[in-house]
This record gives sequence, C-alpha cells and structure tokens, in this order.
Amino acid sequence: MSVTAAKGFTASGIAAGLKDSGSPDLALVVNQGPRLAAAGVFTANRVKAAPVLWSQQVLKGGRVSAVVLNSGGANACTGPGGFQDTHATAEKAARVLGHNAGEIAVASTGLIGVRLPMDKLLTGLDKAAVELSAHGGEKAAIAIKTTDTVHKTAVAQGDGWTVGGMAKGAGMLAPGLATMLVVLTTDADVDAAGLDETLRAATRQTFDRVDSDGCMSTNDTVLLLASGASGVTPPQDAFTEAVRTVCDDLARQLIGDAEGASKDIRIEVVGAATEDDAVEVGRSIARNNLLKCALHGEDPNWGRVLSAIGTTSAAFDPDKLNVAINGVWVCRNGSIGDDRDLVDMRYREVRITADLAEGSESAVIWANDLTADYVHENSAYSS
Amino acid sequence: MSVTAAKGFTASGIAAGLKDSGSPDLALVVNQGPRLAAAGVFTANRVKAAPVLWSQQVLKGGRVSAVVLNSGGANACTGPGGFQDTHATAEKAARVLGHNAGEIAVASTGLIGVRLPMDKLLTGLDKAAVELSAHGGEKAAIAIKTTDTVHKTAVAQGDGWTVGGMAKGAGMLAPGLATMLVVLTTDADVDAAGLDETLRAATRQTFDRVDSDGCMSTNDTVLLLASGASGVTPPQDAFTEAVRTVCDDLARQLIGDAEGASKDIRIEVVGAATEDDAVEVGRSIARNNLLKCALHGEDPNWGRVLSAIGTTSAAFDPDKLNVAINGVWVCRNGSIGDDRDLVDMRYREVRITADLAEGSESAVIWANDLTADYVHENSAYSS
Repeated sequence: MSVTAAKGFTASGIAAGLKDSGSPDLALVVNQGPRLAAAGVFTANRVKAAPVLWSQQVLKGGRVSAVVLNSGGANACTGPGGFQDTHATAEKAARVLGHNAGEIAVASTGLIGVRLPMDKLLTGLDKAAVELSAHGGEKAAIAIKTTDTVHKTAVAQGDGWTVGGMAKGAGMLAPGLATMLVVLTTDADVDAAGLDETLRAATRQTFDRVDSDGCMSTNDTVLLLASGASGVTPPQDAFTEAVRTVCDDLARQLIGDAEGASKDIRIEVVGAATEDDAVEVGRSIARNNLLKCALHGEDPNWGRVLSAIGTTSAAFDPDKLNVAINGVWVCRNGSIGDDRDLVDMRYREVRITADLAEGSESAVIWANDLTADYVHENSAYSS
Repeated sequence: MSVTAAKGFTASGIAAGLKDSGSPDLALVVNQGPRLAAAGVFTANRVKAAPVLWSQQVLKGGRVSAVVLNSGGANACTGPGGFQDTHATAEKAARVLGHNAGEIAVASTGLIGVRLPMDKLLTGLDKAAVELSAHGGEKAAIAIKTTDTVHKTAVAQGDGWTVGGMAKGAGMLAPGLATMLVVLTTDADVDAAGLDETLRAATRQTFDRVDSDGCMSTNDTVLLLASGASGVTPPQDAFTEAVRTVCDDLARQLIGDAEGASKDIRIEVVGAATEDDAVEVGRSIARNNLLKCALHGEDPNWGRVLSAIGTTSAAFDPDKLNVAINGVWVCRNGSIGDDRDLVDMRYREVRITADLAEGSESAVIWANDLTADYVHENSAYSS
C-alpha cells in the first residue's frame, strides 16, 4: 500500500541503471491534489547532500507536487556540479509531469562523493512517469532500497482518511535522523503549517530516537505530502497520532533490518529529571560499542550500561542508579542487584531499563547490537 | 625499566589468585623518597570505581608513598562494600610497608560489578611486599595486564634525572582517559604542585587524545610519583617534555595493542579556528563506526570523514573542507578531490588529515579501526 494507500497519489519504481546490479533505483511519487501541501524534516548533519539543500528550499513554499527519489548514489560532497545535477533532475521531472520544478522535491541515497550518472537518471524519469500508478507504492518502496533486505511500508487508517508511507534505511542510523529516506502521504485535507507541526512532533519521538550505529547521514529526508483528496480535515489529535503510528512502525522496521544486526535493543530511560536528560542517557547507552558487543554475545553486562550513563551530563547520583535487562534488576543503587544469570537473552529484542531515580520523565531509544556482520558489511565494499 | 628506572623506587608483580588463569594480577610500587610528592589524573566518567574515589582523596594531600594495583576486577559499581574493600587494601599495604594508609593509592582494573576476592588480595600483598625490588618494574607492568597482549613501559632520561612509567589498557579507550592504569615515576626533585601542572599538561595532549573505541572507563588512573632521589630539580620545560614523551610513548603503545584492532589511525585536524574545535572534530572522526569499518577494509572512504565532521559544532564551511588519507587529498573544497585509487592502505598506520580551512589551530587524535576481532573479544566473554 505504501505511499499510494492514501487517495490522490500515484507512484512508480523502476530500474534506471544507476545500480550496477540492475535492481530498481528510481522512484517517483506524485501528488494529484486537489491540495499540494507538504512538510519536511532533514538531517541535522551540517554536511548536507545536494538533494537535501534543494528540497529544503522547495519545502519553504509548503507545496510539493512530486518527489523524485534515487538509490545508487547519495549526491553528497559533490560540489556545485552535484547541486546542478539535482536541479536538472527536478527540471526534467517538471517537464515530463507538466509541473513547476520549484515544487518538486528530490532525495538521493547511496555512496557519498560520487557524481550521479545523469544521462541514465534523466532517461529513467521518462520511464518512471509512464509507469505512474495508483497501485505503484510497493514498487516505489522497492526502488529506494540500498542495503535494505526488505522494503518498508506502513499505513494507518483514520475516519475517512488515510496516512501511508515508505522508508529505506539500514545503516548510518542515528539521531537527527538516519540514512533514511521516508515519504509519507495522506489524503486528509491539512495545510502545510499543520503538516509541519504534525511531522515534527511525530519524528521527534520516532525517527529521531532510532540510533542503530551512532552515525548521522548527509541525506536524511522525511517528507509528508497531503492531497486533500478525502475531503476530510481530521481532528488534530487523531491526525498526529496516525502520522506518529506510521513513523513508529517504519522506524521499528529500520531497526529490525539494520545492517548486520542480531539484536534490536529497546532502551527505556525512566526516573529522569527532564526528557532531555532521558534522551541524552538513552543515546549514550545506545552508542556504547562495548555494550553493543556484549549484547550481541548475549551477555547482560550492566557495568557497561553504568559506564555509559556516567559519561552524560544528566542529573543522577551514581549510588542511586538502577538497571534492568529483560526485566531483571541486575543493578540496584549503583551496585550489584539481582542475579544476572536470571536474564534470558535468547530473543532478538533486548529491553534495557535505566532508572535515574531523579524525577518522572522518560524516553525510549532503539538501537542495534554490534556484530562481525556489521563490520563485514561496512568494510568489504564502499557504501 | 618501567617504574623502577628512576632512583628511589621499588616494585613487584605477583599472582595473588584474582585471575582464574593464575597470571600475575597484583602490583606494588613503593616510593622510598626522600620526597613523596605525587599528582594524579582520573577518569572523567561520573560513575567512578571505588579505588578512583579513594585515590582522589589520597592525592589531595599531594603525597603518595605506595601504589597498589590489581587486575582481575575493577571494583566498580560495587557499592559501600566495594569502597571498604579498597580501604582495607590500603590499610593492609600500610601495615606491611610501615606506611600511612592515607598516602597509599589504589588502582584496579577488570570486570565492573563484581566484588574482589579480598582474602586473596590481602594475602597477596604480603607476598608483593617481600618481592619488592629496584628491578621489579617489569614484573609490576606485567601484573597489571588484562586483555593487553604485551606489557607497556617507557623511559625518558634527563640531565641527571629520569622519568619512567608503565601502562595497561587495551579496550574501553576514550578521551577523559581510557581503561588505563598508568604509573609514572621520577627521581627528579619536584613538589606536588609542579607534578600536577606537568601531568595535566602532558596527559591533555597524550592519553586524553587516545580514542580507541569511544568508551570511557570507570577506573582510569594516571599517577606521577617523585622520589627526589636524584637530588636534581630539572628546568620546568625539560621535565614537562620528558613526562610528555613518556606519556606519548605509552599512549601509542595502548593504541598499538588495542583489542582486535588491525589499524592505528592518526587523525590530524588542521586549519581549525580553535584547538577545542580541532579536538572535537578529531574525536568525532575517531568515533565514527562506519569510517572505522571502512578503514579496516582498507577503503579510503572520505565521505564518512565529512559525514563525521558535519555532526560537530566546530567552525567550518562544508564547501571548504579538505581531507587527505595517507597523503592523498581525496576531498577538496567539500567535493571530489584526487583519485582515491592513489591511496595506499596496506600498512597498519593510517593517516587522516582534515583541514577545516578556518584558522591555524590543530590537534592529533589516535584511534583504531573496528574489526570482527573487536566484536569477538567484547562479546565472547564478560570484561
């Protein structure tokens, strides 16, 4: 269902020849209106890819008529020439669709520091336009895969309206978004300001709290497009909840398919003085390589959790920290707690609870373990 | 030569039975004066092991007559009982040596969250005292090893005075010190304030800039002890340079023996507006798992260097960044530079130069690559 679950959208996914493998690598998503409202959030990395710089400009107008997405090359760190490539991509899409180039967003993913083969990409856009279909969402989701083993889609149904989406991302997942490209669509009738508020609220607690490997991408892009085709303006709460649900579903799919991972780690920080403290502590735990290795080895090594907490500026007393792994409080009051042999580590999901014993705020961060497969996937070839 | 290279020191290293393997695990270093001046720097981790809390108190007096060091257990996150164990260790050492317990520093390394077998440790101290020798430095250096494959010592000679030292550390190496225990000794006649100033200046540019795996220990301790036995008070510059040389030598040995590493990565940030900017950027590069994997695979993936720089708050313009790997400027002006195929990656040392093109400040950070062996060493058993 993907980005075509909501009414008023067509999509396609084709092989333009950007990937040597011949796999699909070019996706097109078109908003057929009547409304063309859109919002976007982008990587916090200060080194931004050309398509991110372009799309940020487009989004300032609050209108997006189409999104061109390619895998097979990130078009990042490619200088003025790379930016011209993105501009030419939008111009070409505008021509074949009869749109305004200034309302066409572009997103790219793949190797940094390589120019895109523009002849193939521009020719591919002709084909992608021809294949646009109200059932094209799955093909679009497949065409944006890089090292993803599966394509990722999600849908939430409202009362007479729908939110759908697709995502790609498997490595370089980190706060401030991951190497993720996400397009969400809705036929709800919501204006750009409403979409922006909703998208920021949703991503803050979902994609921004996914930290697979601590590395922040140059290309992360999450777009939310509204066609208004349902004719329904949903209550703000219901709409935000639907968007959050789709984001959460896609974020979990990203963690579940992270490169080389054997564990999905749910880190819940409770008892924090502030939500910021909870997030800071959660991220520090999520990024501790020694802990990530231990969890891969099914070793409930809580000392490495405390060691990670100790590097933060959050409010806590080291002698009051409590840590549970899969429900067993292996650390109480900063010291040895229940028997670590009681912890069952056989399953893919590992649940860590860190209690700062300072207040009532909390946050959940999702991470992955560190494995020899991760090393292999990221050392055996350029990506 | 180690900690007994300088006159006025004896040392020993024995097997107290703390390690199941029966390997040496208890070291004793004794300052025989006439001066007992000392300075220390400790981990910046807010979760500090009991021996760190103890030794910080001892160092406030500026006098250390002996140091007890054990491997086989970190005595971290062990609560009030763990602190009592450290206290008992100092008391026992004071008894067998005829010293004041308040002038005996203690350092421990090994698994977090496990109490030490105190009967073995206290009995071991009797044996360690008997074996003290002016030639015992090597044995002491061997006894503090954990996953180190070799013991680490260094010596610098001044004009009539000497600085020597030993170090242990192989994993959990990070800024704010590593899981390192370091004891430096000198027969120079320098007071505690002079030692403190010298040690902070030396560690700031050496141990503090070693970042093997981004993980900060609960136990890091670097001590500098002066006996005054040479009767020489060296010029401040010469003394600082000698201490810095020994620290730099030991820091390089730590990186060269880091768990599972196949590459030593020298990251030099130049053209920074401030030294703090240079250090922040260097650490961000040092901690990027994707880059560490790429370098393991001998892939000069400069895009991952830019991606890491982009996550910092340092002053730079993305379009002016330059990056060299092993002398080849693969990135110029934030874009594609010289041919990456020119980069020779066959050797253990990899040199990355990141030019921020903003000023004239610089810093060097040392790191390691990320390998399947690192994952194995840190997942196959608790450490």
